[in-house]
Amino acid sequence: MSRTWLILTDGYLSERNAKTAHGVVRYSRDRVAALLDHNYAGKRLADVMPELERDVPIVATLEEGRSLGADTLLLGVATPGGWMPDHWRAWIVEALENGMEVVNGLHSFLSDDAELVRLAEEHGGRLWDVRRPPPDIPLFSGKSLEVPQKIVATVGSDCAVGKKTVAIELAEAAEAAGTRSEFVATGQTGVIIAGRGIAVDRVIADFVAGAAEKLVCESDPASEVLLVEGQGSLWHPAYSGVTLGLLHGSAPHALVFCHRAHHTAIEEPPFTKLPPVPEMISTLELMARDVRDAPVACVALNTKGLDGEAARQAIEAIEAETGLPTGDVLRGDAPHLWAAVARVLSA
Amino acid sequence: MSRTWLILTDGYLSERNAKTAHGVVRYSRDRVAALLDHNYAGKRLADVMPELERDVPIVATLEEGRSLGADTLLLGVATPGGWMPDHWRAWIVEALENGMEVVNGLHSFLSDDAELVRLAEEHGGRLWDVRRPPPDIPLFSGKSLEVPQKIVATVGSDCAVGKKTVAIELAEAAEAAGTRSEFVATGQTGVIIAGRGIAVDRVIADFVAGAAEKLVCESDPASEVLLVEGQGSLWHPAYSGVTLGLLHGSAPHALVFCHRAHHTAIEEPPFTKLPPVPEMISTLELMARDVRDAPVACVALNTKGLDGEAARQAIEAIEAETGLPTGDVLRGDAPHLWAAVARVLSA
Repeated sequence: MSRTWLILTDGYLSERNAKTAHGVVRYSRDRVAALLDHNYAGKRLADVMPELERDVPIVATLEEGRSLGADTLLLGVATPGGWMPDHWRAWIVEALENGMEVVNGLHSFLSDDAELVRLAEEHGGRLWDVRRPPPDIPLFSGKSLEVPQKIVATVGSDCAVGKKTVAIELAEAAEAAGTRSEFVATGQTGVIIAGRGIAVDRVIADFVAGAAEKLVCESDPASEVLLVEGQGSLWHPAYSGVTLGLLHGSAPHALVFCHRAHHTAIEEPPFTKLPPVPEMISTLELMARDVRDAPVACVALNTKGLDGEAARQAIEAIEAETGLPTGDVLRGDAPHLWAAVARVLSA
Repeated sequence: MSRTWLILTDGYLSERNAKTAHGVVRYSRDRVAALLDHNYAGKRLADVMPELERDVPIVATLEEGRSLGADTLLLGVATPGGWMPDHWRAWIVEALENGMEVVNGLHSFLSDDAELVRLAEEHGGRLWDVRRPPPDIPLFSGKSLEVPQKIVATVGSDCAVGKKTVAIELAEAAEAAGTRSEFVATGQTGVIIAGRGIAVDRVIADFVAGAAEKLVCESDPASEVLLVEGQGSLWHPAYSGVTLGLLHGSAPHALVFCHRAHHTAIEEPPFTKLPPVPEMISTLELMARDVRDAPVACVALNTKGLDGEAARQAIEAIEAETGLPTGDVLRGDAPHLWAAVARVLSA
């Protein structure tokens, strides 16, 4: 199904916790009618955040968004803890009263709110709580080892280093190179972009590997390669369990290591120190091996904030340190990295 | 609070899925009035399962259990998938109508059943769904690194190798050696035995490390050592995420490696092959290091089913292979293993 987005960023457009909005703006195949943000209303997105490479108007009211053709309101800010600010409710109510769909990636679910459910029913609107897990997730059983596709997982040194972006960009590069590929979404933004998937961090812990396996087993049988979006990091103690469950459950044949240039510690408490890149790579290969041998095929380096020359130097340094093809997918290196993955898959 | 148990094993007394019953029979400090099992009714537990080292009558009706003083009905069988068989309901209803407490470690919750809740209220009974997580589990923040106690975690090569038993036995050995210690329960049986804890496999995946941290931070401040019950195995792909989240969240200073003698593969599909014991030990130390250096202090070998001589040989072989003190806590080796842990903690 196709949507026309109105994306709520609520004053936070240029901040990191609007990353759901940024991901959808950049990668959704559906039209973005407008952004709803009182701090930037009247400007255009291309002026505020040119790096997102999509130009849409920024408006101050839901009404304006609707007049631009929006049929879906996306709550685009990840609040701390994942709970919904009270004042968002008025926008949600207004959207539902106008028969719109409301898409929510937060931990708190709109469809648990009887009033909102009633409004949606009355006016022909819809509620999509992206993080609500499907009811039928099984325990991991090993079936993901038997799917016909080749499975590639993006893994990383930390959160927010680009695992989702790299999976999407590599899927597109694979398609461009003639390989039918599918992006397998495992986090709320990825699920919104793909229109399907499971936010595995919201699943009961015993079922994370089973959820990953289910995603792999229910992928498009016509695809040749699955690009599985990684989550968290083995070195981020808050999320390492999700990372490992997803790695084992999805049973990859190859890994892509995602890392932020010059980062040496996890960016949240307790600021765990990161091992050197070659050691992180060998640890990931060691842990993946429980299920299947999965070499790291290349390094996807996030060089955000560096100028072109500094980015080139950072890439060359990692290449020398690891002996692996390295590049930044947001600087045009996705085809180069995909070629490295394809070599490993056909070896 | 103190309970007097009537433990439902429902025909499965001697089978592996009665492991909740076995654990409570062996380790609960409360009195066990009787077991409720139609296959063995009229016999005594000491004749059916002498290895549990507690002798109680086995009865066929709830009435008989009550006449022996039971005030709490424990559902003692872990059904496949964790769902409750329909015919248990009659026993639960009868227990509640008699004002008893019903303790349930399954994934399906009794307190979600309005009829059972009403019966408990009417007759002064209680429902304890052991696996229901507390509502206030935070994300991991690193506070577990700051508690004054020394933290010891049991970790293992597979499920059901003895991680809970080893933690309890080592806590008792520590107490006997004059060290105030606390068993920190992380699975349903452990929680029932300890009367507190969190079944971490039932927590939303993002909060596993936070749950482990909460348990460590809320432990008895008078204790010197915490013995944290491990879950799953890094080599069991269905549960490895829970294992790692718990390992990182609890921030141990030392590990005890639990293994079943002569086992070389995970016992459930896809029957992952286990690496050699020294390699498993070094991998555990590698993964623990993200949060804090935690050497494996000793190996707790489960030699169940072996005769005394074969058990001795198995223990010596692991000792030679790893260079670590090795023993079976159910063959009297807990003091020996505790001494090894104490040496590491004081190093």
